[in-house]
Amino acid sequence: MEIPLDRDKGVPLARQIQTHLERLIGDGLLGPGVKLPATRELAGQLRVNRATVALAYDELVASGLARAHVGQGTFVAGPPTGRRAPAAPTAPAAMDWTALLSRAARIAAADEERLRGFGMPNASSTVISFAGGMPDSALFPTDAFRKVLNQVVRDEGESLLQYAPVGGYAPLRRYLAGYLLRFGVEARAEEILIVNGAQQGFNLIARTLVDPGDVVAIEQPTYTGAMQGFRAAGARLMPVEWDASGPRPDVFERLCERQAPKLFYCQSSAHNPSGLSVEPETGRRLVASATRHQVPIVEDGFDGSLHYGPRPGTPLKAVDRAGIVIHIGTFSKILFPGLRVGWLVAPRPLIERLQAAKQLADLHTSALLQAAVHRFCEQRLLERHVTRVTAEYARRRTLLLAALRRRMPEGVTWTEPHGGFSLMLTLPAGLDAVALLPAAVDRGVAFTPGAAFCLDGGGERTLRLAFSSVAAARIDEGVRRLADVIKTARRQPRPRRSERELVPVV
Amino acid sequence: MEIPLDRDKGVPLARQIQTHLERLIGDGLLGPGVKLPATRELAGQLRVNRATVALAYDELVASGLARAHVGQGTFVAGPPTGRRAPAAPTAPAAMDWTALLSRAARIAAADEERLRGFGMPNASSTVISFAGGMPDSALFPTDAFRKVLNQVVRDEGESLLQYAPVGGYAPLRRYLAGYLLRFGVEARAEEILIVNGAQQGFNLIARTLVDPGDVVAIEQPTYTGAMQGFRAAGARLMPVEWDASGPRPDVFERLCERQAPKLFYCQSSAHNPSGLSVEPETGRRLVASATRHQVPIVEDGFDGSLHYGPRPGTPLKAVDRAGIVIHIGTFSKILFPGLRVGWLVAPRPLIERLQAAKQLADLHTSALLQAAVHRFCEQRLLERHVTRVTAEYARRRTLLLAALRRRMPEGVTWTEPHGGFSLMLTLPAGLDAVALLPAAVDRGVAFTPGAAFCLDGGGERTLRLAFSSVAAARIDEGVRRLADVIKTARRQPRPRRSERELVPVV
Repeated sequence: MEIPLDRDKGVPLARQIQTHLERLIGDGLLGPGVKLPATRELAGQLRVNRATVALAYDELVASGLARAHVGQGTFVAGPPTGRRAPAAPTAPAAMDWTALLSRAARIAAADEERLRGFGMPNASSTVISFAGGMPDSALFPTDAFRKVLNQVVRDEGESLLQYAPVGGYAPLRRYLAGYLLRFGVEARAEEILIVNGAQQGFNLIARTLVDPGDVVAIEQPTYTGAMQGFRAAGARLMPVEWDASGPRPDVFERLCERQAPKLFYCQSSAHNPSGLSVEPETGRRLVASATRHQVPIVEDGFDGSLHYGPRPGTPLKAVDRAGIVIHIGTFSKILFPGLRVGWLVAPRPLIERLQAAKQLADLHTSALLQAAVHRFCEQRLLERHVTRVTAEYARRRTLLLAALRRRMPEGVTWTEPHGGFSLMLTLPAGLDAVALLPAAVDRGVAFTPGAAFCLDGGGERTLRLAFSSVAAARIDEGVRRLADVIKTARRQPRPRRSERELVPVV
Repeated sequence: MEIPLDRDKGVPLARQIQTHLERLIGDGLLGPGVKLPATRELAGQLRVNRATVALAYDELVASGLARAHVGQGTFVAGPPTGRRAPAAPTAPAAMDWTALLSRAARIAAADEERLRGFGMPNASSTVISFAGGMPDSALFPTDAFRKVLNQVVRDEGESLLQYAPVGGYAPLRRYLAGYLLRFGVEARAEEILIVNGAQQGFNLIARTLVDPGDVVAIEQPTYTGAMQGFRAAGARLMPVEWDASGPRPDVFERLCERQAPKLFYCQSSAHNPSGLSVEPETGRRLVASATRHQVPIVEDGFDGSLHYGPRPGTPLKAVDRAGIVIHIGTFSKILFPGLRVGWLVAPRPLIERLQAAKQLADLHTSALLQAAVHRFCEQRLLERHVTRVTAEYARRRTLLLAALRRRMPEGVTWTEPHGGFSLMLTLPAGLDAVALLPAAVDRGVAFTPGAAFCLDGGGERTLRLAFSSVAAARIDEGVRRLADVIKTARRQPRPRRSERELVPVV
């Protein structure tokens, strides 16, 4: 720590140190719970006696700004998550940062502002939330993963903690080549690039293929983060609406003819938000159009293993003979979101460019985490885990569908998910999901408005119910509350939308 | 695995399965060492008898395409890293991907092509390599890290493996606020964003502040990845040359006056390649110019802890009163590159935009790794490690400087590094480092040509010698070989440059 000391000033050095630290604490720069440097250490740095520093610390403790713990040191007082730092900035706000933002940053800011409107009010724990589209962490195989982490650090820690090849940990790429064959996807290890989750996947694709102003065809509804990513790359998004069997091939074909899109983004299995899968015939038609018009399809694969029918759906990549489909996969849904490990499959010339984009983005994905995932898979722990969680998610799905049938008033419809974590519900005409949300949260139930999954103006009457994180015992009660809110809303005039806090939609 | 079976065809099912697998193996889609699905599993998927699958596998083993290991299963034959997959693509190369590349991807490809010329010939292990600018993995505290990994997974694994806040793991951000104070950098935890290493740091900055065509002022020489990153964002790079005290303030001031750069990138301590630090007076002048012209400075901090003088250098951020400096730090040099954990410090309005860019890029950095690093730091293991490795790197630095003084012919000069892993050497007039490299490798010594750290046409006579990864006992011999090569080259006509393989420069 640098503390400017004036040795000719007449003010005692201890006092000068104390005043400086008081300012740092007052400005929130030394936050509650932060440990002050050891007296010996700081004395050495400032070239003063250790007693001088100790005196300054004593004064801070006496004034209540710090706490001393014998044998541990001196800490800034207050709980770590206590009062917020004062709002006043430490430096004059000399820079007008807004004026300096790039076009991409301005687009992202506007998009974020728009999504803020669909976010959740601060909900208490009594609220039954169907809003979180993530796996249930209560089902995580945390301890088994701790063991494989241990093994890989023991066996090859030194090389896993060093810089690593940008393409990914070779054994994981080879494993994935075999894994993907289960779904009919044929890829060589060299055609697989390891990325930090699907989100990085479509970002690298956007940077590699999309220039500002390009048209990107995108399924509707779709994953929010994909729309944000392509938009921030400067793309103009054009919708291809889903019907019960997938994104409509006739709409896609027309779009290819008239707009020459740079690419088409869709989720072929466990579609978020609806949980539906693209039916094989629809998939074949989409791939045929794409091949004819030379429009790459970006297929966000979620994870085909998480399906509720007898067998997984057929990825578009499995029927792609022209090498036109870029396939994205991730361990986030099927294992742990927090790993941030996913993959891209693309033909050789393109995967090399995606790899270059990955290197520019962050050199490579942590080899340690890749090796741990590989070890986990290799020991067949992933398969066991998938069997276990799929059974539990299937149970929650069944309970949700049963509750909807039992509780929902006429005019409400919903999808029956083939895979994934959620379904999409459509409200009776005249109702708006965004407007309904505050009343729902008051009543003790939450969801994600469908507008979050749609381009401007779409999805008003729809909402997403994610069943993955709701305990089985609370599902029926949650649906009962939601049904009440819908019934009440039908009898009332439409309320105004209100401002809400931003929560990322996953 | 999907294997299309024709049950009316007359060809036995086992034979059909065998033929399909033969094709997958022949095409390299099932690579050497890949485990075939268990017979029971595949039989279930294909709805055939288990004996049918076993028969197919037996045939593969008989023909040498697979190996059976009792109790383990059947594996594709050949060593995992054996012969390459055949070059022929599986699908017709229908797509002209090159024509579809974005401007950013084309810039990155051209840059990569240019760097290919500075890469290393394939060097054998007898070559003493001063080319790798990474920490020595033999010094890694791997086992201590394994223990903290264990602790954090035990204590909070479930939440660390779930989605996490984009800004970073809160205790790590608080720790960093205190850590940065040691170097005089005052930042609140909320002004710190955790990123996947410094490389992601300047990429997020580029995306947030740089539009295609913008001017970016950049120190010369500088870190290769930074030039690539800003260039791929479409920036026009304008050089600010280093002298012995840092990037020249007069050049920067003139550039600000005439070109209105969008930002200025430099490394203030442990400068890569030279190892020099920006002197305080030079730093103050750079910050004053930047403040006057409202040009943000992107300060790539490497790690100030790794210094060879009595105290660390002063970061530009420490003298920044206007909040104009964006500071980048990383654990890659001081701890493990493989973690991919670093951080950005920026004023509030900008850090929010950088955070939005981070969310679009990959949602967040693995909270598990962040928590492990935090635990490692909190237990003061980082400080112990830094003390230990700094002593070892200082020893190698001293040996290298002594060897240079002893061995180099007249006309060769070099920097005396204050920090970091490398120094920069200047060859006598008339020599070119790129041209010298093949002869050096033949003689058993390697380095990185200085041109890799410079804009087009710069740095021809310079080269980087990294001492961090060279065992102390080999340093003198390496320098002796290099001196021989230089002496020989002075007596010879200039050889032609040759094509070499691409190796990322770190």
